[in-house]
Amino acid sequence: MSKSAGIIVIGNEILSGKTKDENSPYLTRELRDLGVDVRKISVIPDELNLISDEVKQFSSSYDYVFTTGGVGPTHDDLTMDGIAAAFGRRTQRHPELESTLRQYYSRDLLDGNLRMADVPDGARFVGGKGMWFPVIAVENVYIFPGVPEILRRKFERIKEMFREAPFHLREIYLRADEGQIAAILHHVLADFPDLMLGSYPYFDNPVYSIKLTLESKDASYLDRAHQRLISELGKARLSPIKNP
Amino acid sequence: MSKSAGIIVIGNEILSGKTKDENSPYLTRELRDLGVDVRKISVIPDELNLISDEVKQFSSSYDYVFTTGGVGPTHDDLTMDGIAAAFGRRTQRHPELESTLRQYYSRDLLDGNLRMADVPDGARFVGGKGMWFPVIAVENVYIFPGVPEILRRKFERIKEMFREAPFHLREIYLRADEGQIAAILHHVLADFPDLMLGSYPYFDNPVYSIKLTLESKDASYLDRAHQRLISELGKARLSPIKNP
Repeated sequence: MSKSAGIIVIGNEILSGKTKDENSPYLTRELRDLGVDVRKISVIPDELNLISDEVKQFSSSYDYVFTTGGVGPTHDDLTMDGIAAAFGRRTQRHPELESTLRQYYSRDLLDGNLRMADVPDGARFVGGKGMWFPVIAVENVYIFPGVPEILRRKFERIKEMFREAPFHLREIYLRADEGQIAAILHHVLADFPDLMLGSYPYFDNPVYSIKLTLESKDASYLDRAHQRLISELGKARLSPIKNP
Repeated sequence: MSKSAGIIVIGNEILSGKTKDENSPYLTRELRDLGVDVRKISVIPDELNLISDEVKQFSSSYDYVFTTGGVGPTHDDLTMDGIAAAFGRRTQRHPELESTLRQYYSRDLLDGNLRMADVPDGARFVGGKGMWFPVIAVENVYIFPGVPEILRRKFERIKEMFREAPFHLREIYLRADEGQIAAILHHVLADFPDLMLGSYPYFDNPVYSIKLTLESKDASYLDRAHQRLISELGKARLSPIKNP
């Protein structure tokens, strides 16, 4: 069994169409490459109760939860409070973070800046060494900022802790109608129930009209399923397109 | 009050990072332009129970629900069954859709193709005139395919039915630290509680480091809030950057 993950994107700017979410596609690709199975992505507003409910639900459903956005000093930065509430905790000014902020801002420090040192009770630091500001985690929830460059820099530093057995992928390209292959796919799945099998139509590609994706963490299982599918397609006089 | 909307993106190909979701950003921008408030976006796998649960929850939470993906003839196309289950219904072969499909495929028709005529009991057609295949809706749920070009063509045809009073937007660009303005924003919001106010930091822009967005459907309310914020920022010796 793969470890599972959920991603919660927090931010009105995404839901109002002003900003395009680059973070969930990035995290999704990275986690997949690490062998982690992303099960759900949610985009929700900057509202305390909604953040709290979503985090509570995700935390109990998936091995890992990643949040992006809503960490900062202004009124719309409610992620820390929402995560604290999800676990029935409060936020507290963290002395180590406070001292980092005091050092950074020096004489220019305002009370608003210190809000960034308020984290849920029992929060821990991950990948702190060499980072100006560590990734903060509470239980299985890893908290990232919304700014894509910073999120990426932080995720890069900690990602190896999530690595496990990789997914293996095979692709088959066909010129056919999905209706022609539905029964074939169904039969192959009956014998290979653990195969992750996707069928995607393309309507404007001159070379192929279907892409099939076959995936498994078990390379030999994948090979057998792949051979079986190729053979079933052959019986229906459908041959895969090479180098599409 | 704006009408609210939720978007459910259905597809393993998005969650496994193989395909980038272009549909929810498109729908989000379009709905915002139409004056509709998108409250949540979910990306979920091609699994019957998950689709059913999500649709049930969205349908009772928002005025409109839009689904994308999972409509087609293969094993991983479970959207119609999921939506039917969400409303305690079954799918049924629709005679009008069946005849459209029979005409289109003519002698090449396979049983697999006809699965696309199976829709939830009580489904209705929206914007059918002049479309090869209409948008299918069940209660407040509008069902779209995952292929972006087709989704857009279909949405374009029906979008005017969702139009209402527009959102008005003002932006303010500053060179400042968010910690400096947090208290000011807080005060303005105390007097303008219905203002939608966002504060977004930029770390690599040479001209500004904060973008503030102010929104309301009430243009005069927005004007007053905007003037008030400019005046409060002025007292703190912060002046907006023109033509950033």
